[in-house]
Amino acid sequence: MNAHPKGRLIGVGTGPGDPELLTLKAVRALGEADVLAHFAKRGNNGNARAIISGHLKPGIVELPLLYPVTTEIDKDHADYKAAITGFYEESARAVAGHLDAGRTVAVLSEGDPLFYGSYMHLHVRLSQHYPTEVIPGVTAMSGCWSQTGLPIVQGDDVLSVLPGTMSEFELSRRLADTDAAVIMKVGRNLPKIRRALAATGKLERAMYVERATMANTASTPLAEKADDTAPYFAIVLVPGWEERP
Amino acid sequence: MNAHPKGRLIGVGTGPGDPELLTLKAVRALGEADVLAHFAKRGNNGNARAIISGHLKPGIVELPLLYPVTTEIDKDHADYKAAITGFYEESARAVAGHLDAGRTVAVLSEGDPLFYGSYMHLHVRLSQHYPTEVIPGVTAMSGCWSQTGLPIVQGDDVLSVLPGTMSEFELSRRLADTDAAVIMKVGRNLPKIRRALAATGKLERAMYVERATMANTASTPLAEKADDTAPYFAIVLVPGWEERP
Repeated sequence: MNAHPKGRLIGVGTGPGDPELLTLKAVRALGEADVLAHFAKRGNNGNARAIISGHLKPGIVELPLLYPVTTEIDKDHADYKAAITGFYEESARAVAGHLDAGRTVAVLSEGDPLFYGSYMHLHVRLSQHYPTEVIPGVTAMSGCWSQTGLPIVQGDDVLSVLPGTMSEFELSRRLADTDAAVIMKVGRNLPKIRRALAATGKLERAMYVERATMANTASTPLAEKADDTAPYFAIVLVPGWEERP
Repeated sequence: MNAHPKGRLIGVGTGPGDPELLTLKAVRALGEADVLAHFAKRGNNGNARAIISGHLKPGIVELPLLYPVTTEIDKDHADYKAAITGFYEESARAVAGHLDAGRTVAVLSEGDPLFYGSYMHLHVRLSQHYPTEVIPGVTAMSGCWSQTGLPIVQGDDVLSVLPGTMSEFELSRRLADTDAAVIMKVGRNLPKIRRALAATGKLERAMYVERATMANTASTPLAEKADDTAPYFAIVLVPGWEERP
């Protein structure tokens, strides 16, 4: 006979940055959890933890999951893959320890947990073994187009979500073949993104947004942005919807 | 001198269906609004209005915006376009009347207001003339992949959001050229969607979801769905992310 039932795993989307964009369900989960886990870099608690700080339950156990230092290793290198896989395995074991002890663990995820979020690495390792719930959140891209008041897609528009890391040729090819686009992971890819947008006649429509819905947000039509400095998580939006009823 | 300042226009994303997926900001807006507008069909208040019914402020003025009857007219026909454009113009005038009288108007939008939402037709007509705020919401697609626990995209995955209305050739071409896909507007397009997924080797990975996060939701791997009956707003998900660290 088990001493106690297994705890619940909850992936909690925190939304893009504004704490008011938490859902009622996320707030409830934060109140029900025994353990609060979040991915972070050493010395920086990260945005997700900051977003929920006003809803932190007194006495909750915090479990920061600290990424291994990776800045010196190429992302495609086998050493990086081994390090990051080992990190996810170890993180899953740490979370499982609490679940086995009957504790409910909320794992924070900026934006939406299953949309480019680190939470999914725990989800695929644990969700077959423990009762699991995923609470969706407002994505960063929704935060971007809402803050700038830019209708992104309508009717039968095709939307392409593209990482800015792809080659200039590939980015241009895909921009030419879509109605609307969201370009993620801008950072030092910005000059390349500009060229691909110009090559496909879409630079004039593109909007640049960094830290959407946060206090220190900034946005501008990309054609009017004077420099090529951008945070990694900045986003470029290209609205579809040229024919408006 | 004006008797009163203009009212505020607020586009309120209600999320995909579960009332707990309203954001704190949406709930606050519902409490601040003087007028609550929502798009609906005659005789059916629609999902957005149902989602917020627990947060309805006593005494708020309701402004249902009723779509003209359109079932008998082809969507590409000039008569349809004229009818729908006239309807949006008339709706914008009705909302503007309240804004001119200094009343704050919240316009409900299922999911996220600027992501395939009717609200944007008011937004483009009114946001230059009145103080406007858009409150993003959890999209229907996020509701679908969260409810089914299906990690949709990771790392450098490309995501394509595709209307099921496009031709079978076009759908197949785009499915072959993306890591992950969300196919909207399923309805009677389901047999065609199945064929396009089979042709591109993606049928086995596809998940079918209807009424995500609502009480009467249903979901199943598409390959296991026995019939071809589907509501118009059902969604098919194809996860990316084949190589998992």
